[in-house]
Amino acid sequence: MSLTIGRKRWAIAEGYIPEGSHGPAPEFTSHETACILNASDEEAHVAIMIFYSDRDPAGPFTFTIGPRRTKHMRFNELKDPETIPRGTNFSSVIDSDVPVVVQHTRLDSRQAATALLSTIAFAGND
Amino acid sequence: MSLTIGRKRWAIAEGYIPEGSHGPAPEFTSHETACILNASDEEAHVAIMIFYSDRDPAGPFTFTIGPRRTKHMRFNELKDPETIPRGTNFSSVIDSDVPVVVQHTRLDSRQAATALLSTIAFAGND
Amino acid sequence: MSLTIGRKRWAIAEGYIPEGSHGPAPEFTSHETACILNASDEEAHVAIMIFYSDRDPAGPFTFTIGPRRTKHMRFNELKDPETIPRGTNFSSVIDSDVPVVVQHTRLDSRQAATALLSTIAFAGND
Amino acid sequence: MSLTIGRKRWAIAEGYIPEGSHGPAPEFTSHETACILNASDEEAHVAIMIFYSDRDPAGPFTFTIGPRRTKHMRFNELKDPETIPRGTNFSSVIDSDVPVVVQHTRLDSRQAATALLSTIAFAGND
Repeated sequence: MSLTIGRKRWAIAEGYIPEGSHGPAPEFTSHETACILNASDEEAHVAIMIFYSDRDPAGPFTFTIGPRRTKHMRFNELKDPETIPRGTNFSSVIDSDVPVVVQHTRLDSRQAATALLSTIAFAGND
Repeated sequence: MSLTIGRKRWAIAEGYIPEGSHGPAPEFTSHETACILNASDEEAHVAIMIFYSDRDPAGPFTFTIGPRRTKHMRFNELKDPETIPRGTNFSSVIDSDVPVVVQHTRLDSRQAATALLSTIAFAGND
Repeated sequence: MSLTIGRKRWAIAEGYIPEGSHGPAPEFTSHETACILNASDEEAHVAIMIFYSDRDPAGPFTFTIGPRRTKHMRFNELKDPETIPRGTNFSSVIDSDVPVVVQHTRLDSRQAATALLSTIAFAGND
Repeated sequence: MSLTIGRKRWAIAEGYIPEGSHGPAPEFTSHETACILNASDEEAHVAIMIFYSDRDPAGPFTFTIGPRRTKHMRFNELKDPETIPRGTNFSSVIDSDVPVVVQHTRLDSRQAATALLSTIAFAGND
């Protein structure tokens, strides 16, 4: 039985990589994550564009997710074609050639007491 | 009057059971929860599949929810057919034979100061 | 111009009123809230049913929201026909006779350091 | 390739600007934010109305977002036609003439340990 679920285009309007961290890496490193589930039976080819307040978008950042696999992608770790500056507001649009499900999570450990946020991303029509 | 609301397939792209806890159990035990409301007048038969980044999915984990009942299901407590490792990224797909509503909540008490996150899960088409 | 937006039935699958609080009341009292926006030009008649894990639903809890008004309804303060026990898992279904928008927020001040969660509720079809 | 995604009307039922802050401004100033992504190729003209529990709505608060730009709009900073009182419950409706995506985030630094919440806003039909 196929468990395919999701959409091919998603957006996360919030984006901000906190500058600085407390606690052991990598689990307590401040991070901004797009959790992407590919429950389908095909490999997903994913492309992310990053939108800023005062410059043209950056990207695409591309990677694959195997069939029936999840990827918790930290925006902190994107390097190609460029890195995302810390302490800067951004948004993202995520495209995949097969349906996926995207959830946005931040762990903010700038202070000793960690804070968390999470939300389902906005799903496009397809 | 029937209060039926929801869908039969849901996905939670984020998943992570924090390793370690502070404070009295079970309320302050670090946990990852799928809150599932069955507002219908029929028993819900639920099956959960767990997706990982580097291995095939685990499950199905199955249970029932009575008519007009809620179940706050802790992923920590799933045991059959296997347990979910702590400190590991995962995603989940939740199927029910009657419409239900699913919300994802984490309480992270790895530190003395607890952090919370919650989001509605992603609802499939049916 | 009418700013009507929303749906007539909503569900919040998560529900839990933390037992105990730190800090000045009412702003730091642990609470579970359904924020309900009635952006329409008509009064909204709202009815909430509370679902438990091991007993029949409680309610309806009824109140009105004026046209072009918001109500941040604390589950803590529901009294008629009964109160909601603290430290107990529940879910809720919210019905309105005009379209409204519902968002779920918790402030947990059981510890000195407050934790927050929030999510849009699940919108029914109508 | 156009990356347009979103809707023209959104609502955020929760709204509350915490009174007081700890930590360096502006990043640790308590704030309530609507993150708005305009991924389209046209400028977005945005109008926000603020709804209260006991008075008529305030607004419209208007601004533009350039094509392929994001704006993380802090409700704290709205000044025209009026400011939003601190420590007061409100809701908002956000209209744009091109499709945008809206996410709601709060950073609450009333205490030394910061708390975060975030959720996708509710998308209207158009």
